[in-house]
Amino acid sequence: MTSIGIVAPQSMFFAKPLPLQSGAEIAGYTLVYETYGTLNADHSNAVLVCHALNASHHVAGTYSEDAGTTGWWDNMVGPGKPLDTNKYFVIGVNNLGSCFGSTGPMHINPATGKQYGAHFPVVTVEDWVQSQARLADELGIKQFAAVMGGSLGGMQALAWSILFPERLRHCVVIASTPKLTAQNIAFDDVARQAILTDPDYHGGDFYAHGVVPKNGLRVARMLGHITYLSDDDMAAKFGRELRSGSYQFGFGIDFEIESYLRYQGDKFSTYFDANTYLLITKALDYFDPAKDFGGDLTKTLEHTRAKFLLVSFTTDWRFSPERSHEMVQALVNNNRTVTYAEIDAPHGHDAFLLDDQRYMNVVRSYFARVYEEIDGGSLKAGASA
Amino acid sequence: MTSIGIVAPQSMFFAKPLPLQSGAEIAGYTLVYETYGTLNADHSNAVLVCHALNASHHVAGTYSEDAGTTGWWDNMVGPGKPLDTNKYFVIGVNNLGSCFGSTGPMHINPATGKQYGAHFPVVTVEDWVQSQARLADELGIKQFAAVMGGSLGGMQALAWSILFPERLRHCVVIASTPKLTAQNIAFDDVARQAILTDPDYHGGDFYAHGVVPKNGLRVARMLGHITYLSDDDMAAKFGRELRSGSYQFGFGIDFEIESYLRYQGDKFSTYFDANTYLLITKALDYFDPAKDFGGDLTKTLEHTRAKFLLVSFTTDWRFSPERSHEMVQALVNNNRTVTYAEIDAPHGHDAFLLDDQRYMNVVRSYFARVYEEIDGGSLKAGASA
Repeated sequence: MTSIGIVAPQSMFFAKPLPLQSGAEIAGYTLVYETYGTLNADHSNAVLVCHALNASHHVAGTYSEDAGTTGWWDNMVGPGKPLDTNKYFVIGVNNLGSCFGSTGPMHINPATGKQYGAHFPVVTVEDWVQSQARLADELGIKQFAAVMGGSLGGMQALAWSILFPERLRHCVVIASTPKLTAQNIAFDDVARQAILTDPDYHGGDFYAHGVVPKNGLRVARMLGHITYLSDDDMAAKFGRELRSGSYQFGFGIDFEIESYLRYQGDKFSTYFDANTYLLITKALDYFDPAKDFGGDLTKTLEHTRAKFLLVSFTTDWRFSPERSHEMVQALVNNNRTVTYAEIDAPHGHDAFLLDDQRYMNVVRSYFARVYEEIDGGSLKAGASA
Repeated sequence: MTSIGIVAPQSMFFAKPLPLQSGAEIAGYTLVYETYGTLNADHSNAVLVCHALNASHHVAGTYSEDAGTTGWWDNMVGPGKPLDTNKYFVIGVNNLGSCFGSTGPMHINPATGKQYGAHFPVVTVEDWVQSQARLADELGIKQFAAVMGGSLGGMQALAWSILFPERLRHCVVIASTPKLTAQNIAFDDVARQAILTDPDYHGGDFYAHGVVPKNGLRVARMLGHITYLSDDDMAAKFGRELRSGSYQFGFGIDFEIESYLRYQGDKFSTYFDANTYLLITKALDYFDPAKDFGGDLTKTLEHTRAKFLLVSFTTDWRFSPERSHEMVQALVNNNRTVTYAEIDAPHGHDAFLLDDQRYMNVVRSYFARVYEEIDGGSLKAGASA
């Protein structure tokens, strides 16, 4: 298996304002995206890959010979990989509000001529899906072979199945949840408070002050990182290992886990935008499609038409397998076709990004079956979802 | 059952310097403590209650008619309560480094004539136990009927059994652990980083600047609080309940859990000292008595002489029942007499402070049995531990 090689992002401007769930709207906006593979004649082999909190449109391949520029799901997407770009036309799209190219807080608000900063409107998973649907329109994709994502990306896939039932044949929801728990929201709010109370945040207008709320972002990322790893995996990787072999009796680094987390926090604070962090955690918190159906997830999913693949990981305590069970049950209640794999993996929530062979094989064989349905581009009679 | 009523703290000054595990020492120091009940003639009915992170010597009773001044374990300690002050002489002592009266960072460093601030030496659980032993000496207590504590307090009780095997007949270790996991340490370090990077921390000398690192403390407390509650309990108490009934599409308060945590954080930042927070979390991280025994907990506990009561709570994910199992196993390996209760309680780590009847009954009957041993003050022949 090789990577897809060097890729390049594209961008598309949308002049028509996007109405948002909040009641606000985004005026003209740009979506940055990448595509891999070739769209077939009847446009039936397109797969949309939705990204999670700190990722982007750059799903696979590299931007140069530097392996450091490799896409975030390069182990999943590429020639001969589980989502095989020799067969599928794969699209990665950066979400609105992000800091990686699509219109976001760092861009100019046409209404004021200044950077949006904290005035960028709060966007939801459903808003993202609406903006993605417009991109699909422009690319001539009436129906995706699949919409797919992990974590927050899985929420977008689920929202696609609800908002545009006829526009996806398959919905692949990995390590995700139909809504955050109180504990999930609590962690997000602590992270947000760390950013919002950092004096360098300047009410979101830190760009104008030439600073970034580095300390807040750093704490937010350290905290987030703890929730991505399993307790056991952290114990196995770091345990109580000391960096210098003995206690320092100060507040510097004693334990390897401290060194690791601080490094992750420092790195994150150099490239991630604080306003984006706030926006994306709010999108996570707000996602709750059953809210409009009296909390009834079965009713929420009643009009879905896709077939579903759900995957969860046993040690994921952020979005635990129970959350996937809820979705599977609601889909089964609606007589949807559901494949569910619960992978016994030690790596916690982050497992969805890692090379677990059982996990990779599940996705590989699922997409092989999907491809049989679309048969290289000619939809088989009766196989339509 | 009534409270013990109005109580008053006492204090004792120790002129002899206390050598610390770090190699540093604390010159003269004061311990603030409270006592409840009456020490019997042969001084055999004394119980030392050790406190956890944000508590103090004020274990039971009130300081006035105001119920807001009630001690932190008033449901456990008092006349007719599980630890019955009609029978026992109970001592609560504030630990060194605290901000509630005993010598700590806010006090004057005799070497400089200025407040210790960040220069207060890092103290360990074992250092605290050494200082508590000196207090016991002064109070004429050669052997405690029991040393008892929950969480960090349980660590102190365990350390007593190792450092002073002959000085306690019983060791009561509740919701505790023989050492922190990597995940525990990770949470502590995020909290510390929030404080240390708060510009108002001023390298620990914020007293001189007339400010407190409120934002850092606030984040630290919010985060800590999440780990004290169980996921399920948080879901039951708060769920996704909205404060105003609908999403606000901003970064203020949407969910009740946010309101609750921010309130807890705000309150904490008004009364707790940031340097103390740093010190106490380090004492937690450093506690690992098996470290000097090649990680062998059985060997570590070989010379203990006390009988043990351990209690854990099923939903405590901070110090889970597995951590108690490790202690029980190591004690059993040493043929110690161990009573172990695993309480099926929904409240997470905080359960050790709450009124669970099964839990209270376990402690009550345990202390009733202990009292039979000491028989109102006259040790029964052969009953000595």
